[in-house]
Amino acid sequence: MSTPDITLGANQYGKAEVRLVTVGRDGPVHRVKDLTVSTALRGELTATHLTGDNSAVVATDTQKNTVFAFAKEHPVGEIEDFALRLGRHFTSSFEQITGARILVSEHGWNRIPVGGRPHDHAFSRDGGETRTTAVTVQDGKAWVVSGLTDLVVLKSTGSEFHGFPRDRYTTLAETDDRILATAVTARWRYAAGDHDWAGGYAEIRRVLLETFATQHSLSLQQTLYAMGEAVLKERPEVAEIRLSLPNKHHFLVDLSPFGLSNDNEVFYAADRPYGLIEGTVLRSGDPEDVGPAWYSLPEF
Amino acid sequence: MSTPDITLGANQYGKAEVRLVTVGRDGPVHRVKDLTVSTALRGELTATHLTGDNSAVVATDTQKNTVFAFAKEHPVGEIEDFALRLGRHFTSSFEQITGARILVSEHGWNRIPVGGRPHDHAFSRDGGETRTTAVTVQDGKAWVVSGLTDLVVLKSTGSEFHGFPRDRYTTLAETDDRILATAVTARWRYAAGDHDWAGGYAEIRRVLLETFATQHSLSLQQTLYAMGEAVLKERPEVAEIRLSLPNKHHFLVDLSPFGLSNDNEVFYAADRPYGLIEGTVLRSGDPEDVGPAWYSLPEF
Amino acid sequence: MSTPDITLGANQYGKAEVRLVTVGRDGPVHRVKDLTVSTALRGELTATHLTGDNSAVVATDTQKNTVFAFAKEHPVGEIEDFALRLGRHFTSSFEQITGARILVSEHGWNRIPVGGRPHDHAFSRDGGETRTTAVTVQDGKAWVVSGLTDLVVLKSTGSEFHGFPRDRYTTLAETDDRILATAVTARWRYAAGDHDWAGGYAEIRRVLLETFATQHSLSLQQTLYAMGEAVLKERPEVAEIRLSLPNKHHFLVDLSPFGLSNDNEVFYAADRPYGLIEGTVLRSGDPEDVGPAWYSLPEF
Amino acid sequence: MSTPDITLGANQYGKAEVRLVTVGRDGPVHRVKDLTVSTALRGELTATHLTGDNSAVVATDTQKNTVFAFAKEHPVGEIEDFALRLGRHFTSSFEQITGARILVSEHGWNRIPVGGRPHDHAFSRDGGETRTTAVTVQDGKAWVVSGLTDLVVLKSTGSEFHGFPRDRYTTLAETDDRILATAVTARWRYAAGDHDWAGGYAEIRRVLLETFATQHSLSLQQTLYAMGEAVLKERPEVAEIRLSLPNKHHFLVDLSPFGLSNDNEVFYAADRPYGLIEGTVLRSGDPEDVGPAWYSLPEF
Repeated sequence: MSTPDITLGANQYGKAEVRLVTVGRDGPVHRVKDLTVSTALRGELTATHLTGDNSAVVATDTQKNTVFAFAKEHPVGEIEDFALRLGRHFTSSFEQITGARILVSEHGWNRIPVGGRPHDHAFSRDGGETRTTAVTVQDGKAWVVSGLTDLVVLKSTGSEFHGFPRDRYTTLAETDDRILATAVTARWRYAAGDHDWAGGYAEIRRVLLETFATQHSLSLQQTLYAMGEAVLKERPEVAEIRLSLPNKHHFLVDLSPFGLSNDNEVFYAADRPYGLIEGTVLRSGDPEDVGPAWYSLPEF
Repeated sequence: MSTPDITLGANQYGKAEVRLVTVGRDGPVHRVKDLTVSTALRGELTATHLTGDNSAVVATDTQKNTVFAFAKEHPVGEIEDFALRLGRHFTSSFEQITGARILVSEHGWNRIPVGGRPHDHAFSRDGGETRTTAVTVQDGKAWVVSGLTDLVVLKSTGSEFHGFPRDRYTTLAETDDRILATAVTARWRYAAGDHDWAGGYAEIRRVLLETFATQHSLSLQQTLYAMGEAVLKERPEVAEIRLSLPNKHHFLVDLSPFGLSNDNEVFYAADRPYGLIEGTVLRSGDPEDVGPAWYSLPEF
Repeated sequence: MSTPDITLGANQYGKAEVRLVTVGRDGPVHRVKDLTVSTALRGELTATHLTGDNSAVVATDTQKNTVFAFAKEHPVGEIEDFALRLGRHFTSSFEQITGARILVSEHGWNRIPVGGRPHDHAFSRDGGETRTTAVTVQDGKAWVVSGLTDLVVLKSTGSEFHGFPRDRYTTLAETDDRILATAVTARWRYAAGDHDWAGGYAEIRRVLLETFATQHSLSLQQTLYAMGEAVLKERPEVAEIRLSLPNKHHFLVDLSPFGLSNDNEVFYAADRPYGLIEGTVLRSGDPEDVGPAWYSLPEF
Repeated sequence: MSTPDITLGANQYGKAEVRLVTVGRDGPVHRVKDLTVSTALRGELTATHLTGDNSAVVATDTQKNTVFAFAKEHPVGEIEDFALRLGRHFTSSFEQITGARILVSEHGWNRIPVGGRPHDHAFSRDGGETRTTAVTVQDGKAWVVSGLTDLVVLKSTGSEFHGFPRDRYTTLAETDDRILATAVTARWRYAAGDHDWAGGYAEIRRVLLETFATQHSLSLQQTLYAMGEAVLKERPEVAEIRLSLPNKHHFLVDLSPFGLSNDNEVFYAADRPYGLIEGTVLRSGDPEDVGPAWYSLPEF
């Protein structure tokens, strides 16, 4: 059925975007956990590709069921721990499954304040950024790449951009005061081992925000590096961080046709195109085996 | 060019979704205002429709310019005031323009805390609900319908649903404990006149949230009515409120095939289909002229 | 539980966006029907709103089941017929349900050609426009408003815009040659009675497209009216048509800084803001009772 | 400014999603080309990251201008050629820019038929799949990875799924007749050199569709491999193909509570979760230097 010179390369399969919500209700004060979970399995899967023999194919429906059952069998806890449990289960339960990639996104909820007191069982969705993790388990090892997406931030001053080369296609004016806005996507690879996932997340988020706020910016690249460097300085458990920063342009409106000045007061926010600045900050000489930690994730 | 028995009916035109961001920078502590503004004009516009004579057509590009210029000429202030200024400008400046509908959405930003103190000019986007207004100016009168969208809320208990009729197509089990979740879209019509728009918004939002949290729910309809009624009771300036509440279903996962119980702990959040509960709560015998306040808005 | 001067106004509830796919397989040549169905019921529903008494509330889950069962009990046929059957069922089966609004969208599929012949049971999604209907059944009468959305069209010439008034905020240049592009949303109300829904749809779509193509345009309003008028002239069963036409701006790029001309050759397609032209074309003196045909639909 | 043990890793920057529309108007029959272009540059960019020295940073605004200017200076032609021209320009014009990645998506338009004849300058958007290319130019070499996205296909029979392993979490029933539906994303790497890009695209698309239609499927993995293998067999210029196939589940509705059978006739189309089957098919022993062809693209 196969052809001599054609062959199957890298592959994976799984169930994407299982929307799992759990309620911790061991007392009157409920806890809500709202996750989107994607599982992908890798291993000896040639048969199903070449002949449709599914004896090795753990059904994606089974993967979904496992997510739900695991949410009952243990407390879900931090998303990194939940993903590690799932990844280790799949790779240890099925001989032919040698690798697992588990993606989890966590959507936050806040307690609704009633009369100034947080309510026991009523919540409003935190519409801000999403916390993420991408866990890979393979050959008895595990890699954890956690992160956040859609953390939208803006500085109304403290950002310049000048000194760039000019060719025949360059029209952009230099500026020593502009709005700088971006939607942060960050992914950081933890060094091997277990860490304080919740505490690490909170601190990394804080460092990213504070550095964005306080770093005087001569380019979004400089801001990106400063954000990554600050995380690595403050969090020894982080081996590497990748940042993808769209430059959400806010253009100064030309009000001169109407006899009006515009001293960085009135802007229009453009949708497309946008700048896109992407980079990696890491520890030099890091001897760690990166393995498949990033495979099939966005490079940035 | 027209045909005897065919005629032009209701119509409007304008510029939709002008993305306006203003920075108040009269001191080191900046203020950011992030709005999406849509303008629509109505009036004697038959000529352009029938013959392409545009002598009455205030260009949508001009409408956009006016939005930007007005953002400079006066402080933007509350979105209701900004919309009223724009609506009155268009209807008073062009004889043929007898009506204007201005829609404004406001996207919130929070100051980034640095070392525990809110930063002067660095902000993170508030990803929660959007504040809205729809202002109509016509024949020298004005109507203000304000609201909010995408206020996503969830109760992990305190919601029942039973006693509904059963026919041959009914399979739903009755329940005395379910998750109730919705994304609130609310629009309320203010009584004629000026009001404390900012204070009203904050209070109405609070009342909606507290009522959702504390009202024991026998149906989402009951919750809807209670939310609307509470707003009308507490805010005399609100003449009418319309609510559109999708029932964001959270289905209990059947874990019995895995030998597990599920005492309202593990749910899957469904995307589609969803229930959709919509209704109006108003003051009986309200003698006010509603006029075109709701025309071309969603009915709910 | 109610408050003397506060009362329930208009309301409806139902199940939104039931994703129904049927396969007609009475022979080797299969037929696929891909619909999104939303049902909404109206009637004597005060009790559930005021007290949570659900004895009148046909569960939205039951409404969903009914959609699926009806798809088996009768051939689905045209979406208008399917919606009418559903609407009549709900209003005739439950005394308290006096009105029903059924929305159906139909997503097209084409047979995949294999060796030049359309395949019996393999299809590719037609990514173009969506066919829609909104059927209202109330008090033994029925109204049908059908339409289409997302029919994206563009003319690379044959469009002018000039002669518009200029005020202090006007900067737009007049043009006698521009790109005109829009995404047509059309809704037309059929006169009472049964009609050839499929044939009508195909013809109305054809007339809309041909008129857009051939009508030399002095304004998008003129194009809108011409499109509506042409439909009314050719299809006597159409009583009224409403069109919502975003002006999808294609701006000429200024290439002069690079020493290049641009004779309407290079454009950038803008996302926002966009013009929005909306209007109604109808038969003058149409004596028909429009009733709730448009209630809770977009006005345009 | 840097820290001894922290360093900059891989990075790139550019302008994303430039919406370029060109009109070929050298006669009465116009041609429309509708592209979304993203450029990203790589090279010696440490200075801007570490100190904000932008002397190496070709502004993303300049990159955008170059896209527009190039669209005028040469006919755009096939997207692969356009991307190669842009990539070679950036890497040859700026010493510090040693690599460029150009992404182009092409959105199709069809001529509107008027009286059975295709119109000269009026078009409707082809809402189907999008043609894509990702071109990398580096160190004087070039790699071309072309593809398509959002080609949504469905088979109403001819698909089975059984023989998969069962564990304690498995509940899925085996089936010998199910709907198989997916939205094809394919990316294929061309062997080095120039090829008939337009002809290749059309043929690869045809082979993908025909194989999906005619291959009796025992698993979506088998279908994936067959599609890839068929492309490699028929198109010698393709060195490798990667496919990402979401399994768009269509679940049989249980109509038995209503006393109805359901012989694969009535389905509901689920949104989430979905299966996701991803794989690579390539020529074994392909000695070609893949270089950065796939870097920062989705792995599948």
